[in-house]
Parts: sequence; structure tokens; C-alpha cells
Amino acid sequence: MKLWGGRFSKATHSEVEIFTASIEFDACLAEVDILGSIAHAKTLGHSGILTNDEVEKLCAGLTKLQKKIQDGKVQFQIAHEDIHMNIEKLLHDEIGELASKLHTGRSRNDQVALDLHLYLREKTTDIIHMIHALQTVLVEKAEVHVDTLLPGYTHLQRALPIRLAHHFLAYFWMFQRDIERLQDAMKRISLMPLGAGALAGSGFPLDRAYTAELLGFENIYENSLDAVSDRDFVVEFLSVAASIMMHLSRLSEELILWSSQEFSFIELDDAFCTGSSMMPQKKNPDVPELVRGKTGRVYGTLFSLLTILKGLPLAYNKDMQEDKEGLFDAIKTVTTCLSIYTPMIQTMKINTETMRSAVENDYSNATGLANYLTSRGVPFRHAHEIIGKIVSHCIEKKLLLAELPLKEYQKFSTVFAGDLYDVLKPEFSVDTCSVRGGTGKPAVIKQLEVVKQKIAALEK
Amino acid sequence: MKLWGGRFSKATHSEVEIFTASIEFDACLAEVDILGSIAHAKTLGHSGILTNDEVEKLCAGLTKLQKKIQDGKVQFQIAHEDIHMNIEKLLHDEIGELASKLHTGRSRNDQVALDLHLYLREKTTDIIHMIHALQTVLVEKAEVHVDTLLPGYTHLQRALPIRLAHHFLAYFWMFQRDIERLQDAMKRISLMPLGAGALAGSGFPLDRAYTAELLGFENIYENSLDAVSDRDFVVEFLSVAASIMMHLSRLSEELILWSSQEFSFIELDDAFCTGSSMMPQKKNPDVPELVRGKTGRVYGTLFSLLTILKGLPLAYNKDMQEDKEGLFDAIKTVTTCLSIYTPMIQTMKINTETMRSAVENDYSNATGLANYLTSRGVPFRHAHEIIGKIVSHCIEKKLLLAELPLKEYQKFSTVFAGDLYDVLKPEFSVDTCSVRGGTGKPAVIKQLEVVKQKIAALEK
Amino acid sequence: MKLWGGRFSKATHSEVEIFTASIEFDACLAEVDILGSIAHAKTLGHSGILTNDEVEKLCAGLTKLQKKIQDGKVQFQIAHEDIHMNIEKLLHDEIGELASKLHTGRSRNDQVALDLHLYLREKTTDIIHMIHALQTVLVEKAEVHVDTLLPGYTHLQRALPIRLAHHFLAYFWMFQRDIERLQDAMKRISLMPLGAGALAGSGFPLDRAYTAELLGFENIYENSLDAVSDRDFVVEFLSVAASIMMHLSRLSEELILWSSQEFSFIELDDAFCTGSSMMPQKKNPDVPELVRGKTGRVYGTLFSLLTILKGLPLAYNKDMQEDKEGLFDAIKTVTTCLSIYTPMIQTMKINTETMRSAVENDYSNATGLANYLTSRGVPFRHAHEIIGKIVSHCIEKKLLLAELPLKEYQKFSTVFAGDLYDVLKPEFSVDTCSVRGGTGKPAVIKQLEVVKQKIAALEK
Amino acid sequence: MKLWGGRFSKATHSEVEIFTASIEFDACLAEVDILGSIAHAKTLGHSGILTNDEVEKLCAGLTKLQKKIQDGKVQFQIAHEDIHMNIEKLLHDEIGELASKLHTGRSRNDQVALDLHLYLREKTTDIIHMIHALQTVLVEKAEVHVDTLLPGYTHLQRALPIRLAHHFLAYFWMFQRDIERLQDAMKRISLMPLGAGALAGSGFPLDRAYTAELLGFENIYENSLDAVSDRDFVVEFLSVAASIMMHLSRLSEELILWSSQEFSFIELDDAFCTGSSMMPQKKNPDVPELVRGKTGRVYGTLFSLLTILKGLPLAYNKDMQEDKEGLFDAIKTVTTCLSIYTPMIQTMKINTETMRSAVENDYSNATGLANYLTSRGVPFRHAHEIIGKIVSHCIEKKLLLAELPLKEYQKFSTVFAGDLYDVLKPEFSVDTCSVRGGTGKPAVIKQLEVVKQKIAALEK
Repeated sequence: MKLWGGRFSKATHSEVEIFTASIEFDACLAEVDILGSIAHAKTLGHSGILTNDEVEKLCAGLTKLQKKIQDGKVQFQIAHEDIHMNIEKLLHDEIGELASKLHTGRSRNDQVALDLHLYLREKTTDIIHMIHALQTVLVEKAEVHVDTLLPGYTHLQRALPIRLAHHFLAYFWMFQRDIERLQDAMKRISLMPLGAGALAGSGFPLDRAYTAELLGFENIYENSLDAVSDRDFVVEFLSVAASIMMHLSRLSEELILWSSQEFSFIELDDAFCTGSSMMPQKKNPDVPELVRGKTGRVYGTLFSLLTILKGLPLAYNKDMQEDKEGLFDAIKTVTTCLSIYTPMIQTMKINTETMRSAVENDYSNATGLANYLTSRGVPFRHAHEIIGKIVSHCIEKKLLLAELPLKEYQKFSTVFAGDLYDVLKPEFSVDTCSVRGGTGKPAVIKQLEVVKQKIAALEK
Repeated sequence: MKLWGGRFSKATHSEVEIFTASIEFDACLAEVDILGSIAHAKTLGHSGILTNDEVEKLCAGLTKLQKKIQDGKVQFQIAHEDIHMNIEKLLHDEIGELASKLHTGRSRNDQVALDLHLYLREKTTDIIHMIHALQTVLVEKAEVHVDTLLPGYTHLQRALPIRLAHHFLAYFWMFQRDIERLQDAMKRISLMPLGAGALAGSGFPLDRAYTAELLGFENIYENSLDAVSDRDFVVEFLSVAASIMMHLSRLSEELILWSSQEFSFIELDDAFCTGSSMMPQKKNPDVPELVRGKTGRVYGTLFSLLTILKGLPLAYNKDMQEDKEGLFDAIKTVTTCLSIYTPMIQTMKINTETMRSAVENDYSNATGLANYLTSRGVPFRHAHEIIGKIVSHCIEKKLLLAELPLKEYQKFSTVFAGDLYDVLKPEFSVDTCSVRGGTGKPAVIKQLEVVKQKIAALEK
Repeated sequence: MKLWGGRFSKATHSEVEIFTASIEFDACLAEVDILGSIAHAKTLGHSGILTNDEVEKLCAGLTKLQKKIQDGKVQFQIAHEDIHMNIEKLLHDEIGELASKLHTGRSRNDQVALDLHLYLREKTTDIIHMIHALQTVLVEKAEVHVDTLLPGYTHLQRALPIRLAHHFLAYFWMFQRDIERLQDAMKRISLMPLGAGALAGSGFPLDRAYTAELLGFENIYENSLDAVSDRDFVVEFLSVAASIMMHLSRLSEELILWSSQEFSFIELDDAFCTGSSMMPQKKNPDVPELVRGKTGRVYGTLFSLLTILKGLPLAYNKDMQEDKEGLFDAIKTVTTCLSIYTPMIQTMKINTETMRSAVENDYSNATGLANYLTSRGVPFRHAHEIIGKIVSHCIEKKLLLAELPLKEYQKFSTVFAGDLYDVLKPEFSVDTCSVRGGTGKPAVIKQLEVVKQKIAALEK
Repeated sequence: MKLWGGRFSKATHSEVEIFTASIEFDACLAEVDILGSIAHAKTLGHSGILTNDEVEKLCAGLTKLQKKIQDGKVQFQIAHEDIHMNIEKLLHDEIGELASKLHTGRSRNDQVALDLHLYLREKTTDIIHMIHALQTVLVEKAEVHVDTLLPGYTHLQRALPIRLAHHFLAYFWMFQRDIERLQDAMKRISLMPLGAGALAGSGFPLDRAYTAELLGFENIYENSLDAVSDRDFVVEFLSVAASIMMHLSRLSEELILWSSQEFSFIELDDAFCTGSSMMPQKKNPDVPELVRGKTGRVYGTLFSLLTILKGLPLAYNKDMQEDKEGLFDAIKTVTTCLSIYTPMIQTMKINTETMRSAVENDYSNATGLANYLTSRGVPFRHAHEIIGKIVSHCIEKKLLLAELPLKEYQKFSTVFAGDLYDVLKPEFSVDTCSVRGGTGKPAVIKQLEVVKQKIAALEK
């Protein structure tokens, strides 16, 4: 018999029972559900609705149940629909009739909202730490590679030489903003809904601030309808998750490119690659590929939830049950991707020689040459045009800029002098970018300091 | 030791093993994988690559394995990555060294493509039948309710009275187009990729047409690169799945509206509703709500896959492993929703009296009155304006159109005569719509005939 | 001749010129582009790269150009690709050769990033104010309707009576969180990218902190690669825009429902509705319908940008040009929807009598009756079941709970006494919800105070 | 005064007028709207509702208006909301009062549905021809490059050498399926909705089959509610558009990779590239990048429409007005991308030497060597392992497989003999793939024949 069956004259259709049940995926809320129930029991005591003795027995029963669940001694049942009803039933088996009193002044609507807030609060903190771990490895790599030069690209065309440290740190900052976004989102995640009842507020005089304090929430929902009907905090989390995956997908794309025979800038450790069942020479960068692919998965989840919530009238609607599976999947995806990325970055081999050779054998020093002319009085737009023509000429002649004789240069502009060859060296170009945030050596060293302060700040 | 481990000097990182493995979700391909392997073995024999004896032993082993899997006597292992490797390993345990020969001339890339095609072909056929079952119930309901009138809405405002049969049949046609879409998609699903090898075509002279014949495919991929790198047939299926869910979500919205106290047009059977843990009077239309919610889920999956495939260079990339979970989930969602919808529609109670009362107590007969004027020579735009003013007047006076005296009518236009009251009856309005495809009785009866021919056509 | 044409031997294909040009949609950046250029000119002066005289002339020219653009005296040309090149060309026409020096130490990559930051900063502030205006109207409505009762719904089934003020305030809080999200996003929007050059940092010693100060930015991008290649701040803005639209779509759904003949809870003002070209009686809630529809539009834009950015290698890629049209469209959509919603809510007529009548003629007082039993010692689960059976009985007999005689009640439970009828009044149920955040009168009045503090805080 | 204003006592709010008007974007429907109106007028005559004389005057007026619009002599006005009302108004100016009769038996709901069907039918045909043109160029390129070898990739790692013709033809097939999808979608696009009226069917006895015949439709909507409330044919078109863009994005990715200095496989013509305002040497593959980016745009549009339609009750709702802008934008995007792609592919320079050099300097001949062992009796799995170890050894020693002496080979397996070096040549590997659909020469030549038949079939 369903706990709500009084008004019904017929049993639930067996397929419907399975269809509407959520226990298959919300079982992972067991721990936070019990935490919430303990806080609710204490609040019922605190507010004079249950006796101290009742509260103690309820809490003892719940704690015992918590242990049993952790030890895998408990079987949840589809007939009890969801984790909340399952736990209530199990508590009943544990402590008898008193269990029925736990649901006093509470509805599943505010209970499930509470569970989601508690669960997401915990996972958000975990993810912040995992990003931090990845950042730490990126910074370590950056420190080692301050003097490693590689081509910087725009449009996947070589643009200007840069320091590899600078490149790694670009990702540091993307992830840093994602951490800040999670911290900001936390303000909305850390809102206490319990006491909202089904929608109108509990019919019992619960001290909601007390519950919030017990559970470590800083704020409570000030409107009961809002508390049970909105899932914008999940949307916000998924938006940040999408941003994290977007950033990881960009890094992945680069690792895949760099692992190709054509680039050969890096080699991922064997432990992070797999082979082919047919082609014996293959070593595939599966991890970055799969992370790139899983980006689409997290995007899809964000989209699902936005679509689900669109146009729903207040307050709770069953559609909202669909908030959970996607969220759990996104959390799992993000945490797994981050946790694999950190050791993968740590162990990858960087072919500094190949990178160096690349910057010495292209035209990415052309901008430096344009600046050379500009600093000698040629307006920038003219300098740009002159150098464009020289590059075009060199490509035709299969010469690098450093290989073109001075005489030839002077045919394009009489401003050129012998010192032009100095600016063609990659180091010259790189160190021209001395502006704050640039790829010049002092700027990168300065940036590393700022970055390490950020890293340290989170560790506190 | 991995089957591809020769080139590697280090074992796969344990987290990576789990991360890149697909056995957790591709186990459902076991049956089609074995089907495909049997066909491949026979083709190897047919093409003279294996002896008849080898083929027989391979097929016998595979058939035995199939049985064991069906009987649940087999444990798949994450260490063997995916269903293909797992089955190869199990076959090895079954028949020894000969198992190694099964993979001759085949790669996992064309193997997994084959499995997906086989699996989706089967599920597409299932879904067509399930839609057909739902259509049949809609038509049954329509036949019973040819004379049941209810308000037709636009903008959720009552527009014109219509026959309930007509309303149900509108959904018949939406689903009919979805069936046709699935049948069209089947042309692309029913394409045989095996023999494409890793990407360049098998290195063995396989008779691919023979394999296609064995497996009941009508066409084969004519380009090996294309065969292993495209998943547009999955995108197409998911697009149709999204369309089916979109149509179901519209029907769901209406069932939810109609179940509200305000509409009270229908009552879903108890077996398809659930109650509240707190509010004893509640009977919630959970099924249509959840179906409406799950629409977002299927949309998200379509989006995930489109995103995953965007910008992937040829041929196979690991990102594509992400095609499966979403597809399997979408299939499960669509089939479950359809299979629950059919009995739910069948058992729902229709409050014909409430519907009737609605059409008698509103202004949805205003258009008929405008047509009355038009047919008496008033240009339509003027008639429209006159009736608009009359409606406005009646709303103010809290009168229905039938309650306004003739004298009053004549103040708005002298064209009005006593016979105007005839056109105000709902039946009059409804039967004016006598055009083919309209809600007039003969038209609806004609439509029912057409519909039943479509139903019968699929049954053949 | 293109400004970058030196290296090219052939002119751009005419279709390509149109295809790659952005001037058709980025013209709206003209104002911020000039603002940014003035700041850049001043920084070039401040950093000793241009003379004071040059800076003055550049600024004067730019200011003059700004004026001309505002006066509509300027024609942008597709041949100059984008707003940046167009303005540079126009400046050249204005002040001659000196204009060429403005681009010193700057690339279009950091320039367009700067423009986007400036533009979005302005629009974000606008949107915050527009939400605030809508909130103000919601609170005004709430103050008037503290004593207006209406049914609270879950699953679109009547659940418990609530105060209309409480319902309006639920939306206040959703929008309040959206404001906070925009304020949080502002931290990432208000980051100064200029000086990043093409990707590696400007080749000139620009004082970027000075530029930031001139433009009112609090922070600058600390990594040049990051500054030009990320658009996560746009993604974040669009995520919040999606959240705002999601909330508006829910309110829209309710307004549409409430405007239906079946609910008749409200009547939107004529000024916010349109009619039908065929049905004279129609008055359609077009605005909320269109807002609900436009929600999908903004979602699509968010999704487009996430997809575009997925897997892009550093630094700038042309794909990123696609960031703008969607953003501009989303800004326009959100601002238009908000600006129409405010007067629409303000002018809508609320049928308090119809709402009241609804709460008096349903079973939403059943929970109160269950609580009545609970407070008399019946365990909640049993009370729930008893009341469920009574409701079922009443529905069958077509009686409201208040109409069932005490004797009949006592057949279900001997705990019932004559005072049961007191708890059946809507006010009783509503005022039971006295918990903080509940729909009880003192709680709602308290909530109104909190809300007005929030409103006032933003006005400062 | 609005055409529907009779029932209203107040004018539309000016912002609402703009907000709800669609004339800004639906003006492009003018031509098909008039076509539809002419057919409607003729049907009114055919069905005896208008006199022949009236029909003639209406058609003459409409034809004249058509001409004026084409000549740009007409100004549409926001006050008349949409293209339908604008044209009716203009017709009124042209022929006076008779214009009012044109809307007899028609509603904007079926009129706009008709326009969309007509418009999309035309555009779908256009797109089919544009894909065909692109295919033709791909086939031309393939014919020239049957003997050009390049590395085939999986996981962006070199896998096996393939023929460039084979690679180009892979795209031929993807686009071929998209053409077939468009042809299938055409069945649903080519459905005639007129006569459905507002929702219930026209109130006049129109011969809908006659209208369909006049307009060249093969089928008509058999249910009026369905005809005006569904937009699944637009969803279907957008799904195919997404598929086309997905395929174009993959080709784009490859062109971008191949244009990089690292690959240097191709060089796009100057006419299809742009440069940098700062870096004189840059030549950027803007077109494929932008096409790749615009893929996200089309995906977003599909998603918008799916979201908009989700959960809409029957029949027409204003949300559906949002179907048009996205559709028009997607059509423009797809047609522009296709039309630029064709000449870009035609003019791009292919560096056959670089491709050749790539296949000679890698380990993509390893599979051939494994097959060598297999064909000499070594079970495939063992052969794979042996070759894996040899590759690993060679990488360490910086040797290609062809450079490793026989003696060394024999340390790994005694099966090796001097003829092993024959199989290491790229041609050997390529021509092993002789299976139908493979990259072997006869197979590719056969494939070209099949492809040319498909090309020819469409030309008929």
C-alpha cells in the first residue's frame, strides 16, 4: 500500500510504478537525506513538537540506518518510489511506529529540495578542490617551462612565438574563473528550503533558522513556493559545469593536436592512452578525446534541465523529477574528467626541441620585423604591407626571413639595416611582449607570482 | 594484458581503464554483436579465408555464448574495455585459440558501427509498432467521441467548438508523420558497414554483399572511411525521437490541463496517478508530467550527439564512444513513454458533460455569427468588427450571445434577424466546418475512414 | 585594398567578403569601440609612444566621429569587414595619416574583446535595473493582495490555499537571484583585455592598469592568450539570460493559464493583447505567449555559443566571430521582454472573487483536516489515509468536505468532533502556515519587509 | 485601427505592437503569401463563393502587388503586424473594398502555415541543388586524386595510408544522405494546410484538393487542428540542416588542420582567406573556421524550435511566431556556407608531395606487416603483439620500419623473411584494401562509377 493511497481505489499500474519511481538514481542521496532528517527531528524537538525522548530515538534510528546503508546492508525497493519513502520505511522497520512522526511538518517537496542542496553543496566543494589540483599541476609545468618556446597560434596558423609557461597559465586563469563561478553559485546552493512544506510553508511552527544552523546553511529561502518550485541553483551549477567542460575541451583539442605526428609537441604517458585492436603502431590519446566528447554530454544535460523548467507553473511539478539523473551524471563526468586530467598533465612528456625547432622554421617573426620598421618611423599600416610582401616573396623562394639577404630587404624598404636580423630571433619577438600579462620573460615570471598567490589563497 | 598492448611499455592507469571502458553501457549490444560475428565468420568462410570447419566451430561457440549471456551466466569485465573485446575473450575461453581468428579482416571500428546499425534497426521497428498501438487507441477513442463537443482553443482561449474525435485524430496525424520519418530513417539505418576495417577497408577480400544479405541489410556503405566515422544515422534517429517526444509533450500538456479542477474534462485512471505524502486529497497526473519532463531529456541527448560530432576530423575518434549511452537512454525513454501512454489513454475517463457545458457557456460561437452576417452580404472585415463589439458588450453585461435580445442585436446591425439564434448553437458552428479535414460531422467520419486505412496499412 | 593585403596576391572572393564581414551586426559596438580607442590613444601617450599632440588629435577625431555616428551621418562599408576597420578608415578620412598610428600596439583580437566587455558591462547594468523595475511592480501587487487567497497548485492540481501576495513574491525571489547572478558575472565581465595584442601581449610597453582605470575596469586579464581567446564571460551572461527567461516563462505560463476562461483569475489589459483576424470574440495573451516562446530562442543562443567554443584551440579562431549576433539578440530579447512585462503586470486586472470562490469549492483544505487528526494524537501517516478515504467518499457523493455531516466523519474516525469545521475554512489553512517564509499572514507581512529592504538596497 | 479591434476598448501598447509584430522578418514571405492568396481566390471562385469577376480582379490586384514588391516600390508597416495583414491592406489600397473578401474562409493561422510550407519547399529544392554542386566538385577532385596517397587518421593519429580520392568521396556520401533526408522531408513539407481555418476547418465549402493542385502540393492535411498547430516539418528541416552543417564542420576541421604549417597538405586560395591587422605573415582559413562556427548557430536554432514547441497545447499559440526567424536564419546560413564551399574546394591547391612524404615517413605500414605474419600462419592477436613491440623498438631507435634490418626483425619472430620489405610500401598497404568500399585502386575506381551515377540521377 502506498503511503498516499487513502484517496485511491486502484493500485498503481506496474509500469507506472517503475516509470515514476526515482529510487534507481536517487539512492545516492541517502546520506544527505538522513542528515536532513536528523536536523528535522532536532528542529521538531527544538520547536516543542516532539519530546526530547522521541528526538533521541529518531536520531539514533537514523544514525543506525546511515551505518547500515554505508555498510551495504540495505536493499531499497521500487515499490517505495524514492529514497525518502524508502528511508522512512526502513526507519519504521528499525524503530517502529515512532518513525511515522518524522514526517510531521515536512513534505517530500521541501525534503527533496533540501537533499539536492546538501548534495550539491558537497559536490561543488569537491569540484573546487579538483580544479585546484589541476591548476597546481599546470603551474608546476609552467614553472619548468618558462624558457620553452613554441609557436602561438591564431586560426591554427602560427602567429607569434610564446613561452610554454604562458600557454599553460592561460588555462590556469580559465579554471580560476570557473572556481570563482562555483564559489558564487555556492551562495544560491547554500540556501535552506526545509520548512517550505508542500508549497505553502509547514503547518507546524518550525524554527527554520535553527535547522539551517544545524546543517551549516548561511541563508534560508524566504518564500515557501519559491523554495520547492525552483531549480535555478541546479541550472547555475550545470552552467558552470558546461564552462569547465568547455575549457577542458579546448585543452583536450590542443593535447590531441600536439600528440599528432604532425605536431609532435608532446607525448602522453602510456598509462593514459590505448591502442588499436587492428593497427599495432597506434597509441591513441583516448583521454583528451573522451573528455572532448563528454563536453557535449554535459551541455546536453544543461539543456535538458532548462527545457524541463521552461514554462512550468508553480509550484512542484513531476517534470522536476528529471532534474536529478542529469545532475548526477554531470557531476560524475566533471569530477572524473578533472581527476584524470591532473595526473595526465603531470606525466606527459614535452618535446621542447620540436617546439623550439618549430618557432625557428616559420614566419612568426614577421610581426617583430613590422615593429622594427614602425620603430624606425614607418607608419604601422605601411610596415605591415611591406612585411606582407616580403613574406610572400620568401614563401615563393622557399626562404625563411632570416635567410633573405639584406640587399633583398632593402629592395622592399630602404629603412632596413643589418640589425634587422636581431629581431628575427624568437627570443627577441617573445621578449618584446613585455607588457603586463604578456609572454615576455619578466612578465611571465610576474604572472607566476600572481598565480601562486591565487593557488595559496584557496589552500587556506 | 590488453589485446593491443604490444607497443606499450606501461599499463593503463586504473582510472583511465574505467574512464575509457564502455562495457558498463554497451553490454546491451551483446546479442547483436554475436549476430554480427556469426555473419562475419560465415563471410570469412564464404570468401575462403577460413575453412568450413573453422567457421562451424566459431559459429557454434558464438551461439553457445549467446545462450549463456541470455541465461545470465556470464560476467563482463571492465579490463576488457568493451562488449567486443569481452565477447572475444569469452569465446576464447569457450573454443580456445581459434577465437583469435574471428577478428581477421575486421576492426573494432567497423564492428561497433555494425552493432549500432543492427541494434537501432531493431529498436526502430519496435518503436514504430508502439506508436501504432497508441494510434489505434486514439482512433478507438475518436470513434466513440464523434459527437462529443468541446471548446477548441488557440492561445489557450476558447476559439471554436470542435468534435473530440477531431482533437484525438490531430494527434493521430502527428504520430503518423513520425512513423513515416522512422521508416525514412530506416533507409540510412539499414546500411551495412562491416568490411570497412579500421578506416581503409578490410585487408581481406571479404564479400560484403554476402554479409549484408546474411544480416538482412539492403545496402552497404560504399566508402570505408564514411562507414566508420559517421553517426548521422544516430543523429537522424534522435531527431525523430525528439519529434515523437515533442508530440507526446503536447498531448501531455493537454491531459494535465484537462485533469485540473478548472478544466475537469478528463480523469486519468488511478493506476496512472500518484498521491502526495502530505496532502491527502491529491491525485497527480504524474505520467503526463513526467513524459513532458522527459522530452527535455531526449532533446538534450540529440544535442549532445550533434555537439560531439561537430568538427571531428575523419575517421574514428574516441569522442564517438559518447554516441551510445545517450542513444540507449533515448530509446528507453521513448519506448517507456509510448508503452505507458497507450493504456493510460485507453483507461482515462472523459467528462463529456463538462466539455459540453463549456461550449455552451462561452463566446466561441462568435465566428459563426460573423459568418452569418457575411453570408448576408456584409464584408467579412466589417462583420468581424460588429461581432467584436457585440461580444465586448455582452461580456460587460454578463450575457452570453444567445441571451442578447434581437433588438439589441439590431442596434449593431440591421442585417440581424430572428434566425441568428440558430447559428449560435454549438452544433451549427461545428457543422459549418464541413470542408475536408474540418470538424464537421461528415468530414470527421470521412477522416476516420482515411485514418483506419492508414492503421490497417501498417498492420500488413 | 585590405589593410592586411600585403601578403596576398589575389583579392577576396566577393561572397567571402560578405560572409566573413561582421559590420552588419557589430555596428552596434561603434560607441564602445571609440571609447576603447580613446583610452588606447591616451595610454599610448601615457606610455610615451605617442606625443601629447598626437593623442589630442586622435581623441578629437574620435570624438567627432562618435558624434557623427550618433547623428547617423556615417555609412559603414562591408569592404572594411568590421566595425574596427570601418572606424579606423573613417578616422583616416577625418584626420589623415595620423590615424594609422592608433593601431600601434593593438590587434583586432584584443580590441574586439575589449569592445565586448565594455558593451556587455553596460547592458548588464541596464538589465539589472529592468529586473529591479519588474520586482518593484511585483512587490506593489503583493502589498495590495496580502488578503487575496487563491489555490496553490502542485502538479497543476489544487494543493493548498495561499495568499496571492505570497505567489507574487515567489517571483520576486527568483528575479532577485538573477540580479545577484548578474552582479557576480559582472566580476568576469569587468576584466580589461587590451594590451593582449594578437595573443602574446602588446609589443609596446603599454601601462594596462592605466587603460583599465580610464575605462573604469577593476581588474585586467593577467594572461594575454587568455584575454583574446576566451568568451566564457559571454557564456556566463547567456546562462543568466537563460535563467531570467526561464523564470519569465514560468510566470508567462501562469498568466496564460489564469487568463483562460477556465481559470479566469486575471484579465490582461487590452493594450497587451491582440485579437484574431477570424474570430471576433478572441482576446489573446500574446505577450506572455511570445515571452514563453522567446525563452527557447535565448536557450538556443546559449547552446550555440557553447557549441562554438567547444574544442577550439588557443588563441583566437574565426569561429568566435559567431559570438556576437547571438549575444546581441539575447540582450535585445531579454530587455524587451522585461520592459514589456513591467507595465503588463502593473495594469492587469485581478479577479479576486473568482480566486476566492476557487479556494472555497475544492478539497485543498484536506491537509488541514489531516493535521487536525495529527494534533489529536493520530500518527500522521494514519491521519493521511483516513482523510484520503473521506475525500474519495466526498468526490463520489459530490460533497465538499464542509458539507459532510459530523456523523459521517465519525464513521471514518472517532477522533473527529464538531470543531473540525473550523479548520476547513481557507483562512485557517493559510494561517497554519505561520513558519518563516510561509503563506500565513504575519509571515507574508514579514517577508514583504525583507523584500522591500532588498529593493531599497539596489536603489542606492 | 487593427483589423481585429472590434472587441477591444483600448489601443495596443506601442512596445507591444513592435514586440508582437513579425513584419520585420516575415516580409520575405511576401511572394509566397501572394501565390497562396491567388490560389485561395481561385478556390473561392471554383467553390462558388466568389464570382468569376471578383476572382479575376483579386488575382489581377495581387499580381500587380507582387510586381510592385519585387520592384521595391512598397513599404510594409509595423502597425499592420505581419506580412499577411500588410498585403491585405496594400491590396485594399489597390482594388478597394473587394480586397476584404479575400480573407473569406481563411484565417491567418492556416495562411501562415501555407506560406511556410511554400517557402520551405522552394528553399529545400535550392539546398538540394547546392549540395549537388558541392558533390560535383568533390567528385572532380576525387577523379584527379585517385593516385594521391595521404595518411588516413583515427584519433588524429596516422593509421593507414589511403587515397585522397577515397577521402573526398567519404564526404560525397555524407552529403548524399543529407540530400536523401531533404527529399524525404519534402513529403512532409509538401502538405497543403489551407482550408484549416483558424483551427476547426474553414466555414466555407472550399475544395482543398483544388487549391493543392493549383499550388503543386501532392497531399493535404487531413485534420485542420493538426494543420495549424504543428511545425514538425520545420523541426525536420532544421534537423537535416543541422546534419548538413555537422558534415560541413567536419570537412572544415580537416581543411583547417591541413592548412596548418604542421600538416601543409593544402593551401586555400587567397580569395578564400583573410589576413591579420597586426601579423603580416598571416593567411587565415576564415571560411572553414566560420562555417565550423556557424554549425553551432544552426544547432541552436533547431534547439530553440524544439524548446518552443514542447508542451504547447493545441492549436495555434503565439509562441509559434518564433518559428520563423530561426528558420530563415538557418536557411541563409546553410545556403551561404554551401555556396562558398563549392568554389573554395574547387580552387584549393593540394600539396601531393607533402602528403606523399607523410605516408613514407611514419608507421602506418605496421598493420600490413601484421597481416604479413597472419598470412604466414601467425594468429592475428600474436602478430599484432609482435609488430607492436617492433614499432616500439623502432621509435626508440628512431628508425622507420623499412630501415630495420631483417636480422633485427627475426629476433622478434622467425617467420619474417626478406619479402617483408615489399609490404612496407604505402601502395602495398593501400591496395590490400581491395574490398568493395575500400581504398584499394580498383575499389576506388568502382566507387567513382557508383558516385557518378548518383550525381547523374539527380541531374535528371
